[in-house]
Amino acid sequence: MRNYENSVRYSASSEITLFCLKFPHQDGHWSIKKIMKPFFQVKTSQEIIQIIENFPALSARDIPLEQGLNRVLAQEIISPEDLPHFPRATMDGFALRARDTFGASEAVPALLTLSGEIAMGQEVTVPVQPGHCFRIATGGMLPPGADAVAMIEYSQPLDERMIEIFKPLSPLDHVIQAGEDIKEGQSLLQTGQRLRPQDLGILAGLGIETIPVHHKPKVAIISTGDEIVPINQKPSPGFIRDINSITLMGQVKESGAIPLFLGRTKDHFGDLEALCRKGLEEADVVLISGGSSVGARDFTLEVIHSFAAAEVLAHGISISPGKPTILARIGNKILWGLPGHVASAMIVFTLFVKPCLNHLEGEAVKSSVPRTTARLTRNVPSAQGREDYIRVSLEPSPEGWLAAPIFGKSGILSTLVRADGIIRIDQHCEGLEKGESVEIIPF
Amino acid sequence: MRNYENSVRYSASSEITLFCLKFPHQDGHWSIKKIMKPFFQVKTSQEIIQIIENFPALSARDIPLEQGLNRVLAQEIISPEDLPHFPRATMDGFALRARDTFGASEAVPALLTLSGEIAMGQEVTVPVQPGHCFRIATGGMLPPGADAVAMIEYSQPLDERMIEIFKPLSPLDHVIQAGEDIKEGQSLLQTGQRLRPQDLGILAGLGIETIPVHHKPKVAIISTGDEIVPINQKPSPGFIRDINSITLMGQVKESGAIPLFLGRTKDHFGDLEALCRKGLEEADVVLISGGSSVGARDFTLEVIHSFAAAEVLAHGISISPGKPTILARIGNKILWGLPGHVASAMIVFTLFVKPCLNHLEGEAVKSSVPRTTARLTRNVPSAQGREDYIRVSLEPSPEGWLAAPIFGKSGILSTLVRADGIIRIDQHCEGLEKGESVEIIPF
Repeated sequence: MRNYENSVRYSASSEITLFCLKFPHQDGHWSIKKIMKPFFQVKTSQEIIQIIENFPALSARDIPLEQGLNRVLAQEIISPEDLPHFPRATMDGFALRARDTFGASEAVPALLTLSGEIAMGQEVTVPVQPGHCFRIATGGMLPPGADAVAMIEYSQPLDERMIEIFKPLSPLDHVIQAGEDIKEGQSLLQTGQRLRPQDLGILAGLGIETIPVHHKPKVAIISTGDEIVPINQKPSPGFIRDINSITLMGQVKESGAIPLFLGRTKDHFGDLEALCRKGLEEADVVLISGGSSVGARDFTLEVIHSFAAAEVLAHGISISPGKPTILARIGNKILWGLPGHVASAMIVFTLFVKPCLNHLEGEAVKSSVPRTTARLTRNVPSAQGREDYIRVSLEPSPEGWLAAPIFGKSGILSTLVRADGIIRIDQHCEGLEKGESVEIIPF
Repeated sequence: MRNYENSVRYSASSEITLFCLKFPHQDGHWSIKKIMKPFFQVKTSQEIIQIIENFPALSARDIPLEQGLNRVLAQEIISPEDLPHFPRATMDGFALRARDTFGASEAVPALLTLSGEIAMGQEVTVPVQPGHCFRIATGGMLPPGADAVAMIEYSQPLDERMIEIFKPLSPLDHVIQAGEDIKEGQSLLQTGQRLRPQDLGILAGLGIETIPVHHKPKVAIISTGDEIVPINQKPSPGFIRDINSITLMGQVKESGAIPLFLGRTKDHFGDLEALCRKGLEEADVVLISGGSSVGARDFTLEVIHSFAAAEVLAHGISISPGKPTILARIGNKILWGLPGHVASAMIVFTLFVKPCLNHLEGEAVKSSVPRTTARLTRNVPSAQGREDYIRVSLEPSPEGWLAAPIFGKSGILSTLVRADGIIRIDQHCEGLEKGESVEIIPF
């Protein structure tokens, strides 16, 4: 006689998610021993991205322009003035009236009288007379009446007052007109744009000294696990050093957000709840490393439910690795429960947490840069119905870049160090073939 | 009678480099008026890269691991210990002797006696007896004698002491052996490697608390030009705000180096020499924006020659835009004279100054990531004998990414903001055709 009942449930993605064991007690009663808890709301990666894109961006404030590198604009920037605000020479040469050079050639040069030299930063108010010119350098201001600049390479002085010009000019040759680059009232930069060096440059050129940007997300990091010790401790057998905290802190920094390491906790409801409460108070986003799966020691979900305003948006993502992931909203804060395996945690961070942080910072979702591609060095099998992410190392070859899949047991760390990127295998795909071109996700 | 002599010299790359004008004085003497000075040592881009790669890297020091993100290792890291240092389970399940499951199936399961549960962080010293097993969680330490872990999904408890296993196991199934990931004495990370989050993670896992890294280059930035005013000033006609300083500071930061803005100076030998001396004292690299060409107001070369140990390594690079660039070594410091046009300066920075800074920081020259590619939306002409760099904006299309060339007069700034990258046209090439695949250089 089998005196137990083993109830097994299948999630949408057909993975085993619940094991409850019914044990006979000596007094004749039965007790349920939980070994695994269910994944409640397994979502696809597309569904997770949709959830993320509905989060509101963090608030904005004005900061000095010189602190603006890589910050995200909270408002469109309209040009307050023309740029340039005066007509400028784009070459070294002679400012003149183009019509005075019409028909000029090497054989029959135009002959002009030199009225003087325009210094940089000098405003000449005397108009250029017909048949006259001024020496001018690149960036110099054209005098009234001048509409073109003859390049010095196509000129020759006859004496100190007379200049020969060998090439006919059209009006506006080698001149930028006032407002030709940027016009007052023109839209310059868009809401949600992350500022690059050249964007700061153009804002400086227009005298915009402060800019409205979204706050950077503050991200509290909590590392859980009975077996985790700080890196400055020699772990006894059975214990390991905390690898996930420093890895996640690095990923948070690279995403443009601010990491706050809150500390390590054992797999203990009360301790985790206390750290989590602190994280929700001090940060915009809480990352809990470990404890997000369905084992008896996985308390993250219970801790989330202990908060009044908690809403679990996903428990389980149908990707591999990375399934045991929790996404929750607690009031206006976001909480991610990440897998304990650092490789899985890194992949979930790359695919979802980073886009979440960028979105909270107000970055408009746009991928203005195509991903790089490479050709697979061997076949990569994949289970249908599951989205797989495979680490690859990249190598140049005469036929272009090659991506070599890196295989290894799930707990192996050295594969992370060897990886140059990850590739995605669609859930409807049974695998990829040697020689296929794959997109490389930076990792 | 033409009473002048116009001597024109041609540089190696056949561009006009010298204009000296001989004027008659009223007293019968002749005077030479310099309008343009020669480019002395025009180099190709490959020659510049070779020069850069011969610079010695900056010195190194030990820093705490948690400050190591994006720093460059000054020494190879050898693993001081095995990782893991004990055999670990990679799945939740039962630690056992694989041979006790040989031949097991759904119909004829193996029956094992549960000796207990291994807590996380617990070292079990009692060996697994034949026919026995321990409950174990992912990451738990295998007891002596156990050589495999049966997944909980393929097990069933008969009662509180007896467990059925439905699947035969091979030794090492779902186990990472001690040292299987990383072995003591194994080379982990290489000299010249820039540290990513996962690299820090593995160092943490091995208890490496300090790491030897090269100093980040300090980069002094000097902006020159009679027409330049600070961004908080309303420029009078003829003047413009300083765009180059903030742009170059941003590019220096993005290169992982430390920018020091030294200030603005007029085109004045003494002022530039004083700022330059300050830069050479305080920084590893001095960037002078403007004054690097061959005009009468271009003092950078003369200032360089005023320093005793100065060696001009290049004056002129055969690229467009960006030709008027100076590279010099003064003692153990590097000086770059950059073109005054911000677009040209940015391109020279991207192609040469950034690699120079990365090299000084000790980064081993390797491009482990392929560049992205896109297809041209139209023909792009180019002069043979000159390496051209063209700004492009990128757009997705059903046939893949498209690169639209951005044309505009050389002084136009808004093209920089619209650009997503630059493309290179080889000097032996007369142009690129619509539909051609081009590599995108991030910009």
